[in-house]
Amino acid sequence: MSQNRIYNFNAGPATLPLPVLEEIQESFLNYKSSGMSITEVSHRSPWFDDVINDAIARTKRLLGLDDKFTVLFLQGGASMQFAMIPMNFLGDGDSADYVNTGTWSTKAIKEAKILGKSHNVVASSEDRNFAYIPKDIAFNKDAVYAHITSNNTIKGTQWAQFPETGGVPIISDMSSDFMSRPLDVEKFGMIYAGAQKNIGPAGVCMVIIREDMLKRCPDTLPSMLNYKTYADKNSMYNTPPCFSIYCIQLVMKWLEETVGGLDAMEKRNREKAGLLYDFMDATDFYNATADKDSRSLMNVTFRLPTEDLEQQFIKAAAEKGMGGLKGHRSVGGCRASIYNAMPVEGIQTLVEFMKEFEKKNG
Amino acid sequence: MSQNRIYNFNAGPATLPLPVLEEIQESFLNYKSSGMSITEVSHRSPWFDDVINDAIARTKRLLGLDDKFTVLFLQGGASMQFAMIPMNFLGDGDSADYVNTGTWSTKAIKEAKILGKSHNVVASSEDRNFAYIPKDIAFNKDAVYAHITSNNTIKGTQWAQFPETGGVPIISDMSSDFMSRPLDVEKFGMIYAGAQKNIGPAGVCMVIIREDMLKRCPDTLPSMLNYKTYADKNSMYNTPPCFSIYCIQLVMKWLEETVGGLDAMEKRNREKAGLLYDFMDATDFYNATADKDSRSLMNVTFRLPTEDLEQQFIKAAAEKGMGGLKGHRSVGGCRASIYNAMPVEGIQTLVEFMKEFEKKNG
Repeated sequence: MSQNRIYNFNAGPATLPLPVLEEIQESFLNYKSSGMSITEVSHRSPWFDDVINDAIARTKRLLGLDDKFTVLFLQGGASMQFAMIPMNFLGDGDSADYVNTGTWSTKAIKEAKILGKSHNVVASSEDRNFAYIPKDIAFNKDAVYAHITSNNTIKGTQWAQFPETGGVPIISDMSSDFMSRPLDVEKFGMIYAGAQKNIGPAGVCMVIIREDMLKRCPDTLPSMLNYKTYADKNSMYNTPPCFSIYCIQLVMKWLEETVGGLDAMEKRNREKAGLLYDFMDATDFYNATADKDSRSLMNVTFRLPTEDLEQQFIKAAAEKGMGGLKGHRSVGGCRASIYNAMPVEGIQTLVEFMKEFEKKNG
Repeated sequence: MSQNRIYNFNAGPATLPLPVLEEIQESFLNYKSSGMSITEVSHRSPWFDDVINDAIARTKRLLGLDDKFTVLFLQGGASMQFAMIPMNFLGDGDSADYVNTGTWSTKAIKEAKILGKSHNVVASSEDRNFAYIPKDIAFNKDAVYAHITSNNTIKGTQWAQFPETGGVPIISDMSSDFMSRPLDVEKFGMIYAGAQKNIGPAGVCMVIIREDMLKRCPDTLPSMLNYKTYADKNSMYNTPPCFSIYCIQLVMKWLEETVGGLDAMEKRNREKAGLLYDFMDATDFYNATADKDSRSLMNVTFRLPTEDLEQQFIKAAAEKGMGGLKGHRSVGGCRASIYNAMPVEGIQTLVEFMKEFEKKNG
């Protein structure tokens, strides 16, 4: 790679497309002849209007969103959404369904509980350390929404198909697989995603909200905790996180114009993940931790025969220019996060290294 | 200026120190030999630990904060703080005092009201369109806090001295004059500041909180709305806005090492504002809108004889490389925001231009 850059397998903040970073760098002192850095441009200026509106338009085109969906930019990450969702959508007598597939789902459920909002955990894969995505879930027909985490960064699982909810709108935390594949958007009442995995730097959370959900938001909420505030002002009730939105705009442009859309992106992601899983399935030295039908295309979690070997593996990989292969501190082991921006060459290099490491230590 | 950069008089996002921008640009593809952009580095890495800890250490040194103060990084801007403050500090039977000095104070009061929290507006300058800072305010001795806005970006006023509250902790929104002068920190229970005026790009809000205030935060709040969550985890309960925090670190370094601390910064700011106010006081063509004893050193608001002349003035200045001189859309007129990073040459250039414009149109 150019500029002594590593292959960055971090789970997030994560690798971004190199052409995007180069464009940011090049214009950093003078954005589009404004005489200002993009970090200095007023959010109430034609320059920034173009940025935010283009980011929204590209997101809508890429996902095929019609006018009943509004695209918003919030702050506080997915963690803030865990609280805002029940605050906005669950009034007196309302209840929501949650599926628990790991750390982030658990946190989402915790916030509904703190708020004293009625909710049912209708399925969980906790019985086997969240190694799988639950099937055949009985959702409550009168639930206001069904909350899921589409990809589980820590446990390395992902919903291959979204569940049938009998018409209950799905709300999905898509922080770690947003824009990695096309979606049947009609199933969703809301989609949200912290940017720092697939679409940009940390500091902004995208929210795609359907009009019927937006109508539920009560006026009794503080302004900044009400989705309506953001929808009414094109996410500019107050100063938005401009730089992060600008990065998202460039990533969406890269997705549309360089990658060629979400079908092409999914194909590339399947190819990348396939290289890694196929290799691991052919050896006993590396063991993918998730059930086969629940494997994530984004976060490939795996174990080596011993923790000692895992530590050696992570260290030796880092020395060869492959960073971030350590599993989440809560579970240990190894993890290769291979988001949209990870090139296939990164996976090929990793697989070659894994072969060598096995030969020496297997 | 280099690189065809303008003198940027925007109220925020605003001009940043050029050496800071240059350092960000130079290392943007490969931060400190990590092989990653700072936007790609994990927040759970030694690289980012150094960034956030250095930003905090420099802030504490610059302001002379002892261990009873904790420095936090939040998201959602000052507007989110307007809600979090009453949520965290006002329990049953508690009440707070607010001073209303303009748009942002009004919004802070509005959020306390939405939340149904007991509060008293103990002083207001609304009677004269917020052109002054109220004096001799009778604060309630049993108020949990006294909320003020230290500098009013839109109305061009600033507290020259902070009020005597009889021991009630002051909570101040310092978004637009944070780090522009030394503070007697002992008076404050909490200080907060959206970064996008004096200390960095939009997308992060610094909070300095005293231990007695931190103890008031109730466990019944959603995690992301409780100051304790941030204090317990060094602002990394979830992924923080890493890039914005990195920029703040560099601005704090610039303040310490290039400017030479907050005494030097204040001196420079007084000199800059003095140039502009002294010039305007000597002519009838330009009229500063704030009362003399309440004038802001950060946002110099002024009017010309007619709105038509104001429009011509703003346009002609922009053509000469001076941007952002339009007053806030809610009040009209002109405004020169001259934050820390605006060099004295920017003010000199502006004053020269103002003289010429008056000569032609006066």
